Amino acid sequence: MSQEEQVFSYRPIGIIRSPFKEPVGMPVQPGGARGVTGTVEIFGDYQAGLADLEGFSRIILIYPFHRSAGWSPLVTPFLDDRERGVFATRAPRRPNAIGLSIVRLTGVKGGELSIMDVDILDGTPLLDIKPYVPAFDSFADERSGWLSGCDEKVVTARSDRRFQEGHTGR
Amino acid sequence: MSQEEQVFSYRPIGIIRSPFKEPVGMPVQPGGARGVTGTVEIFGDYQAGLADLEGFSRIILIYPFHRSAGWSPLVTPFLDDRERGVFATRAPRRPNAIGLSIVRLTGVKGGELSIMDVDILDGTPLLDIKPYVPAFDSFADERSGWLSGCDEKVVTARSDRRFQEGHTGR
Repeated sequence: MSQEEQVFSYRPIGIIRSPFKEPVGMPVQPGGARGVTGTVEIFGDYQAGLADLEGFSRIILIYPFHRSAGWSPLVTPFLDDRERGVFATRAPRRPNAIGLSIVRLTGVKGGELSIMDVDILDGTPLLDIKPYVPAFDSFADERSGWLSGCDEKVVTARSDRRFQEGHTGR
Repeated sequence: MSQEEQVFSYRPIGIIRSPFKEPVGMPVQPGGARGVTGTVEIFGDYQAGLADLEGFSRIILIYPFHRSAGWSPLVTPFLDDRERGVFATRAPRRPNAIGLSIVRLTGVKGGELSIMDVDILDGTPLLDIKPYVPAFDSFADERSGWLSGCDEKVVTARSDRRFQEGHTGR
């Protein structure tokens, strides 16, 4: 089997709850979702793996963009009005539609996590949680290409229908 | 079908090349791999998606820990000598063995990316690339639980056999 034909399959370890019931009108990054609260429900088999998580004030959630369909090499992201290479964006219409959000962790109670700064659709399956560690993950002075100067726009930008099923995402 | 039974399947978009031919004796985070160079070969179908990536000085690579087998709710991570909840660690023996590394992008030439600070095993399949954007991803002052004070240890720590096939990872 060639490397391109390998398949890696994952099952949800839990489910993400948020105020966003539809993928339209959502914040496009946690920066635009400051103060938005949600929860993560971890399925029973996996709850023992949450030990020690409470010591971290931020966590990385990895999840499928389960309402996105197909992909395009070029997309017009919510934060721009021209096409960009999909790997230079965080848009959902990716070859492997995997999403990543860094959210605030405000509580752990049994199998339920309380989270804040949530830019994730309600009902999104969760694939993994990792602790956010500034020593590993925080790099303040990096060049951010076409996104330079989008700091303000990200606070106000909201999603529209462009990446949904039946839309081309262009 | 219940949510726990859903399966999300992904195929590699490329392959990561590094000096680490075996999962033993590797740096355990990019912090311990400063200056280590590698490349990412993107398969033909996906190369058009690399447009605009060159403007970013760091990128997020998402990949399967393809040499890790099974998982445990508690693991003794390379940076500690006691068990921690697996979701409070970056260890590979996770329910969904998905890895994440933030590496420096030093060049893009056709379908090949030159990268630095590489803590990834040679031959690892690549699932996704995202641009690292300080406005979205950099949080300097977060609490990092049991990892507080590991900043120096991460530079010198190296992997051993604990998370490999046939080992229990405990």
